[in-house]
Amino acid sequence: MRPVRIALGQVNPTVGAIEANARLVVDGIARARGLGCDIAAFPELVLTGYPPEDLLFKPAFIEANLRALADVARASQGLTVILGFVDKRDDIFNAAAILHDGVHAGTYHKQYLPNYGVFDENRYFQAGTEAPVFAVGSTLLAANVCEDIWYPTGPTTHQALAGAELVVSINSSPYHAGKALFREKMLATRAADDLVCLAFVNTVGGQDELVFDGQSFIFNEKGERIARGRAFAEDLVVADLDLDQVFRARLHDSRRRKEKLATTAVSPRIELPPWPPRERAALAERAVAELAPVEEIYRALVLGTRDYVTKNGFGRVALGLSGGIDSALVATIAADALGPTNVTGVTMPSPYSSTGTRRDAARLARNLGVELFTIPVTGVLGAYRRALGGPFKGLKEDVTEENLQARIRGNFLMALSNKCGWLILTTGNKSEIGVGYTTLYGDMAGGFAVIKDVPKTLVYQLAEHANRRAGREVIPRSIFERAPSAELRPNQTDQDTLPPYAVLDAILEAYVEGDQGLADMVARGYDSATVKRVIAMVERNEYKRRQGPIGIKITPRAFGKDWRLPIVNKFRE
Amino acid sequence: MRPVRIALGQVNPTVGAIEANARLVVDGIARARGLGCDIAAFPELVLTGYPPEDLLFKPAFIEANLRALADVARASQGLTVILGFVDKRDDIFNAAAILHDGVHAGTYHKQYLPNYGVFDENRYFQAGTEAPVFAVGSTLLAANVCEDIWYPTGPTTHQALAGAELVVSINSSPYHAGKALFREKMLATRAADDLVCLAFVNTVGGQDELVFDGQSFIFNEKGERIARGRAFAEDLVVADLDLDQVFRARLHDSRRRKEKLATTAVSPRIELPPWPPRERAALAERAVAELAPVEEIYRALVLGTRDYVTKNGFGRVALGLSGGIDSALVATIAADALGPTNVTGVTMPSPYSSTGTRRDAARLARNLGVELFTIPVTGVLGAYRRALGGPFKGLKEDVTEENLQARIRGNFLMALSNKCGWLILTTGNKSEIGVGYTTLYGDMAGGFAVIKDVPKTLVYQLAEHANRRAGREVIPRSIFERAPSAELRPNQTDQDTLPPYAVLDAILEAYVEGDQGLADMVARGYDSATVKRVIAMVERNEYKRRQGPIGIKITPRAFGKDWRLPIVNKFRE
Repeated sequence: MRPVRIALGQVNPTVGAIEANARLVVDGIARARGLGCDIAAFPELVLTGYPPEDLLFKPAFIEANLRALADVARASQGLTVILGFVDKRDDIFNAAAILHDGVHAGTYHKQYLPNYGVFDENRYFQAGTEAPVFAVGSTLLAANVCEDIWYPTGPTTHQALAGAELVVSINSSPYHAGKALFREKMLATRAADDLVCLAFVNTVGGQDELVFDGQSFIFNEKGERIARGRAFAEDLVVADLDLDQVFRARLHDSRRRKEKLATTAVSPRIELPPWPPRERAALAERAVAELAPVEEIYRALVLGTRDYVTKNGFGRVALGLSGGIDSALVATIAADALGPTNVTGVTMPSPYSSTGTRRDAARLARNLGVELFTIPVTGVLGAYRRALGGPFKGLKEDVTEENLQARIRGNFLMALSNKCGWLILTTGNKSEIGVGYTTLYGDMAGGFAVIKDVPKTLVYQLAEHANRRAGREVIPRSIFERAPSAELRPNQTDQDTLPPYAVLDAILEAYVEGDQGLADMVARGYDSATVKRVIAMVERNEYKRRQGPIGIKITPRAFGKDWRLPIVNKFRE
Repeated sequence: MRPVRIALGQVNPTVGAIEANARLVVDGIARARGLGCDIAAFPELVLTGYPPEDLLFKPAFIEANLRALADVARASQGLTVILGFVDKRDDIFNAAAILHDGVHAGTYHKQYLPNYGVFDENRYFQAGTEAPVFAVGSTLLAANVCEDIWYPTGPTTHQALAGAELVVSINSSPYHAGKALFREKMLATRAADDLVCLAFVNTVGGQDELVFDGQSFIFNEKGERIARGRAFAEDLVVADLDLDQVFRARLHDSRRRKEKLATTAVSPRIELPPWPPRERAALAERAVAELAPVEEIYRALVLGTRDYVTKNGFGRVALGLSGGIDSALVATIAADALGPTNVTGVTMPSPYSSTGTRRDAARLARNLGVELFTIPVTGVLGAYRRALGGPFKGLKEDVTEENLQARIRGNFLMALSNKCGWLILTTGNKSEIGVGYTTLYGDMAGGFAVIKDVPKTLVYQLAEHANRRAGREVIPRSIFERAPSAELRPNQTDQDTLPPYAVLDAILEAYVEGDQGLADMVARGYDSATVKRVIAMVERNEYKRRQGPIGIKITPRAFGKDWRLPIVNKFRE
């Protein structure tokens, strides 16, 4: 038995708040020390927050992060601390610092820089080439950064072959539905393949369109999970490792000896003094339950909303309540994220609003306990018609008048935002944003698009789930049952213009997430004319998406950083 | 004398219009053949248009480009054609095809993939490793792609050392002010360093926020420019090269013989049949004048506007005419780009509009010959005040009411856009967009922000220049002389809120283009409080820029693809 106690500080940093982020780390170190830990690890780029984007081009930003690292180093007495920072040499590196007993003892530079999806790391960083192993007395440990762990013959393998018994992977790995499970399996495999204890520490929190889900993990050399961090909340995950088990397992594995030779060049060994002997109490058992898929998404939306609002310095939000399912879900998420007293619903009836939707908006607000304003659009709409009477003389009514209503609502909300300092949440879902069934500067007006990446069919599932988790019918049943409508002209329903949502969502998923073309989808049984129409709508409305607010990514490909389509685009399949 | 005649097809492709782009190339080949050319070269990714962005993830897009390449290959009888396409092997490559006498004879893969500024090529492409040289009879030529030419010991050097007498560099090199001259110097140096004839063919035209300036060049082995393409217009640049001069020059250069050995491995030689002997007339002299800096920028704005509007399928634009200098300049550019009959000015007076600005808007419209609508905001503003009377009860008038006026104007313009199918041009300049002295969904509402990257001080210079080039006072003198004002409250001027524009623009240039921090700017003599205030305004308004329309990049760093700052950002210097 050669026991090592490790703590993973699953913290929620804020991009640019370098001093505050360093305090999160220093506090975590103090807690880890109190629990008798030998090692405390914190996420990738925890000092700067992730992703810092073009802030990385500012020398003052890099310097501030180096000063913060020096502060953290001084706070590392008696243990080893691993954390992410931006290293500056002849270039900058996405790096892990290895601090040991008050001293900055070594540095690892991320080798695999992701430059796909939402990632642009080649824009900023130079890639590392060395994968050092640190000998703390007789214990061999190593660190690498995020993407590195995803490569089966990457730095983890080199470090394990060079002797590392524990590899700490520091991460800022953004959430999308289904990723956590995939990641957990990969980590288990990596630990078992490399016969190494693997500690995976992840950021938690929202940053613009990204949510980091936490869910840090510790695996033993058999690939067995021995600890798990909470999802969508800060946590300090502590576990005891028996590194003699790693050594013993490796003695049985003769293949490993042959592979070892090639790794010494890239994995230099750095010797550090041993940890002091410690008295420590046994760890309490803790169980962190796995979340059901729909609950996982719901929590991502709540955390993403809370962090966007509060990290931008807002205390309060407002949103339009139409009496439809989208705004009902967003209001529910907002009330969960910020508390109902920090949410104002605004119902803005037009001549085409039904009594049903008006009543449902009021009932929802009451159920949630949020304030409700009523501001009718009719008077302003009349004034617009009069003002535009000249230029529009002789022209028929069309979508222009529908858009005007939506834009009047947008202006009302923005006026409340300006006057009261509230952030406006928009309520568009991924299906309508995908096909452009939205009004630019109208229902798209606002600071944050909570369900921007949630397809309509999933909106219904999340709304059902919201009622289940509340244990009561917060969102009135009638909202679920009414046919979706923008209520911008008499007797309008979404399905006048769009295919049924089940069909639309399947096509959109194939097109957006799968880059499937017309031929692929027709081969999978979709109607050719429908697919063509949907693709044409998606392409035609790129200009709208480019001007819409950002929102929370929950799928493998959102209409955000991972969707970079030209506006001028004549490609037709 | 071993003469070779080369044509550079400086064409204007459209992203996604693969068949139409191929026709541009085929037409260019036919013209080159008619002129007795041996070689015809076309820009980087000319078949797909540049940059194709995430269209590159669509297999059908890649396939369409390969089919188009096969069509072009068939059209290459009797000469050698070099053009850009997306090559598909185990991965995709930004490639140059070498077509010879009807056959696809070889391919070069771009080695240096730009991933900075506006570029994301690592997101898409695998880098090439080989730099082949093609022997057409006794003539040795080679091709490489854009970024490759910027590296002093890159593929051009390898190809020249391996014998290439002519290197064809195919480009889609976006414009910013000052870049053309820098590029020309670099190309002259590269040709002379490598003792090689260098033909640089560039795309021309607008694509979303980018403008490609054309300005193709041919240099001899002394680095002397022997031909130059037009700026901001299509062109076929034809020149005769004497490659015996290259051979002779190299015989005098013994250093070259020693360097040669290392390059054979990366520069394989591909043998092709010689060109047929040709009868050809001597080329007419042609002189393409260099543009003055302000004229160059003006033409970039005109071409960028014309291509965005027409490539998106619009025939006509509208914009608000406030009587100020920004909208006057944009109207003038639009009239030049599309013809005055395709431009509608809209003046939307409020209670705070002066008779001076109203008169000037009318005079400008008359001078330009554009239609003018007048739609007063007063009636609608009153209706908003009444509708918001309840929620705003007891609250003082503030910026909310100013924004409402701007948003009413935005809605008027969007209503015209919806009703008449016109694209709305916005008129905000870089200074106000930088500090957020704009109204989201108000003056920022529209499809294209023509002068988004033009600082206010340059707006004045361009407006003066527009009058000079028109040979008359199109933009009334009184517009130049009036203090800039948003006219959203009584006696308002921009300088109530902002530092003088000369100071503001200098600070913004240092901050945005130079990534200078507070300390740098104070060291250069700027007032610390002013710099702090400007930086804070830029940071606070990131959310507005994120929802603004795209506009034409004319500086080294625009608020576009080359500006990627987080919205949640607590970094303060």
